[in-house]
Amino acid sequence: MSGYFLPHVDRMAGYTPGEQDRAPTTVKLNTNENPYPPSPRALDAIRAALGDDLRRYPDPLGTAFRVVAGRLHGVPPDMVLPGNGSDDVLTILTRAFVGPGGLAVSPTPSYILYRTLAEIEGARLVEVPFRPDWSVDPDALALPGARLAFLANPNSPSGTCLGPAEVAAVARRLDCPLVVDEAYADFAETDCVALVAELPNVIVTRSFSKGYSLAGLRLGYAVARPEVIAGLVKVKDSYNCDTLSLAGGAAALEDRAHFERNRDRVKATRRRLTDALRSLGFGGPESLANFVWCEGHPRAAEIYQALKDRNILVRLMRYQGLPPGLRVTVGTDPETDRLLDALESIV
Amino acid sequence: MSGYFLPHVDRMAGYTPGEQDRAPTTVKLNTNENPYPPSPRALDAIRAALGDDLRRYPDPLGTAFRVVAGRLHGVPPDMVLPGNGSDDVLTILTRAFVGPGGLAVSPTPSYILYRTLAEIEGARLVEVPFRPDWSVDPDALALPGARLAFLANPNSPSGTCLGPAEVAAVARRLDCPLVVDEAYADFAETDCVALVAELPNVIVTRSFSKGYSLAGLRLGYAVARPEVIAGLVKVKDSYNCDTLSLAGGAAALEDRAHFERNRDRVKATRRRLTDALRSLGFGGPESLANFVWCEGHPRAAEIYQALKDRNILVRLMRYQGLPPGLRVTVGTDPETDRLLDALESIV
Repeated sequence: MSGYFLPHVDRMAGYTPGEQDRAPTTVKLNTNENPYPPSPRALDAIRAALGDDLRRYPDPLGTAFRVVAGRLHGVPPDMVLPGNGSDDVLTILTRAFVGPGGLAVSPTPSYILYRTLAEIEGARLVEVPFRPDWSVDPDALALPGARLAFLANPNSPSGTCLGPAEVAAVARRLDCPLVVDEAYADFAETDCVALVAELPNVIVTRSFSKGYSLAGLRLGYAVARPEVIAGLVKVKDSYNCDTLSLAGGAAALEDRAHFERNRDRVKATRRRLTDALRSLGFGGPESLANFVWCEGHPRAAEIYQALKDRNILVRLMRYQGLPPGLRVTVGTDPETDRLLDALESIV
Repeated sequence: MSGYFLPHVDRMAGYTPGEQDRAPTTVKLNTNENPYPPSPRALDAIRAALGDDLRRYPDPLGTAFRVVAGRLHGVPPDMVLPGNGSDDVLTILTRAFVGPGGLAVSPTPSYILYRTLAEIEGARLVEVPFRPDWSVDPDALALPGARLAFLANPNSPSGTCLGPAEVAAVARRLDCPLVVDEAYADFAETDCVALVAELPNVIVTRSFSKGYSLAGLRLGYAVARPEVIAGLVKVKDSYNCDTLSLAGGAAALEDRAHFERNRDRVKATRRRLTDALRSLGFGGPESLANFVWCEGHPRAAEIYQALKDRNILVRLMRYQGLPPGLRVTVGTDPETDRLLDALESIV
């Protein structure tokens, strides 16, 4: 039967998501989930949608959600496209622009899903190294024939973030759309949504999995020009977002106080975690996301395992040509204390 | 900007979902939703999952759901793949097997999404007419070079259903996987899940949108050989199903009493609706789904509009080479009465 699969599917290994250990004793700092609960208003909105109406199909375009997200970003609703997680939006973008045999480009090291998205499509991803200061050389990224560029901003695993002017310079240099993947922008000081008005090839994607504590709900969205969104609508599944996530997501966006409080707590803990990690000898750039990158460390694999033996999960990241590093999610303060105590006894 | 889209995306029109009128006064008989509410146990399971845990990613494979669905069908969990609606599963299958330029095949008239799935992929769908008695000629469907065959069973719009022996004959004749799309099988007398054990190229898909009154939740699944499921896992989005739908879907599957009661009510109303439509002069085959097909009718478009003017939505279906027909969802008894009263005054 496997002979029926397309050759490029047979060849590929598939994406390996981070470990999803749900044991209550585990300190889970490996998949960048928000340590604080989702907005009670989001949960209330889901509860209110939880009834007979679930027998109906959702609004295929998520109109009410688009209005709320558009209002937040100061764009009309037809510049917003909700997706089943921002991963769904990234899949739609790959299918709409890259195509089989096509070329996509991304700085590296970055979100490892980009390679999988290209592989599923039978496309190629060329990875262009970040500069040593984690900036991007627009000329290097502008590969001839590239049909789509992915830029995680803030980037994972580095946590670094290019400012809008730097991103605009990249977009202007490209002959293809630039996806500014802002899954972590909720924890940064700048974002690139305003560039969409200025530069027709900029597409910004957002997620509810990090800043809004709703990874389990699967919701994200794109912000782009109306004509781009209209094209993406043709490629998406007809009903790609469910009634509950659209209702919960809109309410979460509207609960600014909850969002800001948790964001500020994460940022405060990030400061403390970063300082402690650096004083323990883990180098890395300043993070503007909800994780801290411990760059190449000779004992990274051993430390990862020693933490795991203590029921503390962090992410051991291996990128081609680089020594392995540890990506540590910003947890609650008690979780961070437990991590730091463990690290002190390990290193 | 639209110049960045792949040429086949620019060319395509996109899928048009049925009208989603939510006005409480509208009798909505156009998208085959179940007229009865979802299982209270499903809603309770979602309510129970609605809390802090939503900040976590879902189980990427939906393990607990697979166990429940596997138990229902008498197959091991690794023969089940949940998807974000069975449409998501159909998308995954198209991407895994057909590919751009590839050939898919389906009897016609059938589920119009198959054409869209092929178009999004840059593939071709060849439609082979059903025989006049709505059976399938295996030789006609076995087009050389076809990489995937779709068979909606029961079929939409006809509501007709091939028995397992007829489906097996089709599968044996094909050189490619046969997707038996059982979105409506909950209302039929037979299904083809048992064929999966016997025939390695059979893949059965199921939906929660019809039999389980959960169209708003977006959940479906495939049943196939473990090696097929393993390949499809590589192509799906990493977290394609959310925590709430997996919890609600498993509970809905387990509430057999609720499912059977509503199924039996729909079937009883289907009998009455069919007889009344036939006595009003609307011809068509006997339905084994939750809708009744009124085959080509000279006044179909006019009747559709006259019903719409009375706030009754049915689906006007136009297929190439056939006169338009009306597909009427089986609603509650009062909804059916209102439809029949209106039709009596219109025709």
